[in-house]
Amino acid sequence: MDTLGALSRTHNCNELGPDNLDQEVVLMGWVLRRRDHGGVIFIDLRDRWGITQVVFNPEVNAEVHAKAHRLRSEWVLAVRGRVERRPADMENPKLKTGAIEVLVSELHILNTSETPPFPLDEEVEVSDNLRLQYRYLDLRRPEMARNLIMRHKAVQAARNYLSENDFLEIETPMLTRSTPEGARDYLVPSRVNPGRFYALPQSPQLFKQMLMVAGMDRYFQVVKCFRDEDLRADRQPEFTQIDMELSFVTEEDIIGITEGMIAEIFKAARGIELRPPFARMTYDEAMERFGTDRPDTRFGFELIDLTEKLRGCGFKVFGQVIEKGGVVKAINAKGCATFSRKDLDDLTEFAGRFGAKGMAWIKIKEDEWQSPITKFFSEEEIATMREALDAEPGDLILFGADSRGVVNQVLAELRLELARRLELIDGESFDFLWITDFPLVEYDHGEKRHTAVHHPFTAPREDHLDLLESEPGKVKSRAYDLVLNGNEIGGGSIRIHRKDIQERVFQVLGIDQQEAEEKFGFLLRALELGAPPHGGIAFGVDRLLMILTGSDSIRDVIAFPKTQKATCPLTEAPAPVARKQLTELHLRPDWKE
Amino acid sequence: MDTLGALSRTHNCNELGPDNLDQEVVLMGWVLRRRDHGGVIFIDLRDRWGITQVVFNPEVNAEVHAKAHRLRSEWVLAVRGRVERRPADMENPKLKTGAIEVLVSELHILNTSETPPFPLDEEVEVSDNLRLQYRYLDLRRPEMARNLIMRHKAVQAARNYLSENDFLEIETPMLTRSTPEGARDYLVPSRVNPGRFYALPQSPQLFKQMLMVAGMDRYFQVVKCFRDEDLRADRQPEFTQIDMELSFVTEEDIIGITEGMIAEIFKAARGIELRPPFARMTYDEAMERFGTDRPDTRFGFELIDLTEKLRGCGFKVFGQVIEKGGVVKAINAKGCATFSRKDLDDLTEFAGRFGAKGMAWIKIKEDEWQSPITKFFSEEEIATMREALDAEPGDLILFGADSRGVVNQVLAELRLELARRLELIDGESFDFLWITDFPLVEYDHGEKRHTAVHHPFTAPREDHLDLLESEPGKVKSRAYDLVLNGNEIGGGSIRIHRKDIQERVFQVLGIDQQEAEEKFGFLLRALELGAPPHGGIAFGVDRLLMILTGSDSIRDVIAFPKTQKATCPLTEAPAPVARKQLTELHLRPDWKE
Repeated sequence: MDTLGALSRTHNCNELGPDNLDQEVVLMGWVLRRRDHGGVIFIDLRDRWGITQVVFNPEVNAEVHAKAHRLRSEWVLAVRGRVERRPADMENPKLKTGAIEVLVSELHILNTSETPPFPLDEEVEVSDNLRLQYRYLDLRRPEMARNLIMRHKAVQAARNYLSENDFLEIETPMLTRSTPEGARDYLVPSRVNPGRFYALPQSPQLFKQMLMVAGMDRYFQVVKCFRDEDLRADRQPEFTQIDMELSFVTEEDIIGITEGMIAEIFKAARGIELRPPFARMTYDEAMERFGTDRPDTRFGFELIDLTEKLRGCGFKVFGQVIEKGGVVKAINAKGCATFSRKDLDDLTEFAGRFGAKGMAWIKIKEDEWQSPITKFFSEEEIATMREALDAEPGDLILFGADSRGVVNQVLAELRLELARRLELIDGESFDFLWITDFPLVEYDHGEKRHTAVHHPFTAPREDHLDLLESEPGKVKSRAYDLVLNGNEIGGGSIRIHRKDIQERVFQVLGIDQQEAEEKFGFLLRALELGAPPHGGIAFGVDRLLMILTGSDSIRDVIAFPKTQKATCPLTEAPAPVARKQLTELHLRPDWKE
Repeated sequence: MDTLGALSRTHNCNELGPDNLDQEVVLMGWVLRRRDHGGVIFIDLRDRWGITQVVFNPEVNAEVHAKAHRLRSEWVLAVRGRVERRPADMENPKLKTGAIEVLVSELHILNTSETPPFPLDEEVEVSDNLRLQYRYLDLRRPEMARNLIMRHKAVQAARNYLSENDFLEIETPMLTRSTPEGARDYLVPSRVNPGRFYALPQSPQLFKQMLMVAGMDRYFQVVKCFRDEDLRADRQPEFTQIDMELSFVTEEDIIGITEGMIAEIFKAARGIELRPPFARMTYDEAMERFGTDRPDTRFGFELIDLTEKLRGCGFKVFGQVIEKGGVVKAINAKGCATFSRKDLDDLTEFAGRFGAKGMAWIKIKEDEWQSPITKFFSEEEIATMREALDAEPGDLILFGADSRGVVNQVLAELRLELARRLELIDGESFDFLWITDFPLVEYDHGEKRHTAVHHPFTAPREDHLDLLESEPGKVKSRAYDLVLNGNEIGGGSIRIHRKDIQERVFQVLGIDQQEAEEKFGFLLRALELGAPPHGGIAFGVDRLLMILTGSDSIRDVIAFPKTQKATCPLTEAPAPVARKQLTELHLRPDWKE
């Protein structure tokens, strides 16, 4: 193999064009493809930036041509040569460098390569496990490189924007204390403090509040957070947040700042000009119209509440649900009256997965409302529904009748399923929506107590403070979430900065004084030592980038993601450790060896 | 207490000056100081940016003045008022806002404060523990805020510089696999993989090499790293690195890029214009002249090797050391002949801490070489030493005689101690020095094998490859460290990119094929799938910022540092956890409860 020596690149593989004709250049990269044609060897040389065709012609240099005969896929080369225009019929308009080629006079083989376990130049289905095991090959694929480049640009744009807006990036500890924020902590045993454990942060929430008490005024951080949850398709044990906190601000300030940041991110990463301000919707309206607090507003099919209209109606199933305090809501799936029996059976089965005990439907035909249940409704009830649902011939009405929670969830999922089936969604549109006026707490029937909808440090609305003890369920918080295309990409709130209010909220959440002191003593102490009004927000970088890049999975925007079993097939982490290491940590095994 | 409402700041507390006279402004911040004078209340209002004097005059607004009577230190205020020029004799030229004051017409008390446990407006000695326990107060002190602001600027400058130079910031995992790099790992038990553990990274070394194999070409990351070591004064369990790696480069490329980055950092953080290129010195020369591979070159007092000159000399102690293969080196402490007996005893005791069995010295007087040992040397030996040491009347010669390792360490430390005692060091000078040509390996007499001086992935010099098996101790590596004022602030190397060489180096390090496969199998596999030539470097952000800010401790440049027992007095991390959490992690306690 050859050494690099003093050889220096003059250009990358996406740079040369007709302006460079006749220049002597040095390129370095990987053999993507080799074609031999009429005794001449053509190599597509690839680097992070692109592809350039390099040519080995025996008539130019027989020795170099002979050496080039050894070249195989993924070998690493440095070549010196002259830029020439390709013959007109050989131009490749798909490549930025497609008008030229480099006629090689000097070839250095910097490394060879075994045959890769999967080809990189084709759209081949490769198992996720193999992709992760050979991640360094997987990342050579242009779409993966593009994702990481876009991620870099997006995060860098956010950092620059926030820096220009007087934010300081301040690092908070990774080895910290477990705070109860809903999910399970990753623990790190302390060697020098036997029986004690650090927790990896689920978020830097309390540290950023401390920074506000410290007078830092505007903090941000791009920060790793951790949750030891059972992984669903799009969860990772570690994930990255753009986290921020501001002092002396209201919701409007934070929303304004973050809209500006999101706009910068989209411009830098995709060249897309967003036009803030984004739309807003209250939590109550979102639940009413879409059945979820993160509605995808790129298509219609909204939920229509028929409860009051059908109270005491002829169809007993609905009537009884309503009588028991439940609700009846419906979606008008415009133009879907052509759905087959099988389609409807599939949708019913789908609805069942989300708790529906069945699914009533009506096909609106020119001459009749086709359905097993039409006969139970009076003329008047039909007319009422027609008006409420804007039902026209060709439509399909799908009903949910159950408790409000079940109906909302089922119809919200059905709505998304219909959009997928009907391909209603424009993949290139980005619909942003702020959700505001969340409830402060919700009642957990399992634990028989109120839990925080966001977290215990979220401020209640000032004008709802009077209801805090008497009707906590009616208190709205000062929280806001940002939803993009039906995904929650960020969320935050104005925080409690007064000790008396924080103590009252702890009480409402069933956290007594002793527990509050134990877990949050330092927060309470900080609140009585000059805490300013403050609030913040955090954005999930992985999910945002998944949407920005149009990827199917957050794994495609993370360089070294974990599998669903939280393992890394490349390094084989997690791995067994020596017994001595455990002993040093004052731990003994409790597993079958 | 008052609410913020729709009130909005117009300026920060370091912004107003004579240009703003008669403007109505809104300021927010903390009460730093209160003075009552002739019925008028003067408050120094402080925020992150600075201080502005706000004035409550009963003749302007009696009600507001009355309210202001309640104000105490560290209360949080919003004030509306008019900018006025201070009376000429009341101007404060030390403050940027010292020419003006704000006559308040509207006062909002946003929060009160208990009396802080230590005052913030004076240079009071506060115990480290108390400072960390109330870190949010400690950080309100202007010098601490200044440090965090400088840190933000420094890191942001590095990021922008690297981005402009085509680097991509790519995140590597925090939950990773233990790699043997010298220090103890922090371990994270896996819940879903019983008996298996993640390690927190000591560095992203192998991941960044994987990114080079992946063709990312230029990677960087500002990244948390972890070492579970017993903490010395200036170590933290978690620390931050600016980490980078480049493909298709030599040492010169990396040195050039990083010199540019350091220059940007100094400009952004301190307004200091550095003038790269920095000085360079080989490892051998540094050890010879300074006894250390991180010499502080801001002052002289270099080590002079007298071994050959004193071989067989009249002073038996030296003669015997030399005969046994040891060395004799000396420092000429210019002008220190006035040191007292006690000074010399102190220095001897100091030298003893680093392994010296004693310390010979000679005071050069006008008329004699004053010392218990002078009498043992011949006239000729004295003359030789005089010349070698450039000894003149008034000088003090300090000797080290022992194995080369001990002598170098003792004299290197003595040299620093002399500089401290004599205050030789200009606190405002920044001396950068590259150390190059390190040995690849050193022999560990305890473990009876060669260990890597940097790490096992460091490339040997091409022209030394022949010596790898026969005389590994003579092989120089392609590593380089950057030293600033005697501190190693960065280090890196060109890496091995060929599998055959990596395997040979593993052999030299006593890592057999099975162990290599087990621990580094994925690296070896990657090296045979098209690994480009590559290399990199990493900088310690905490230490660099300590030097940049002129702080005494790295704790002063970290928002929430740990104590020497690796605890956080603010949050009381690490903390006990519920037994259930341990059980979930398949662990049992092995500590006394």
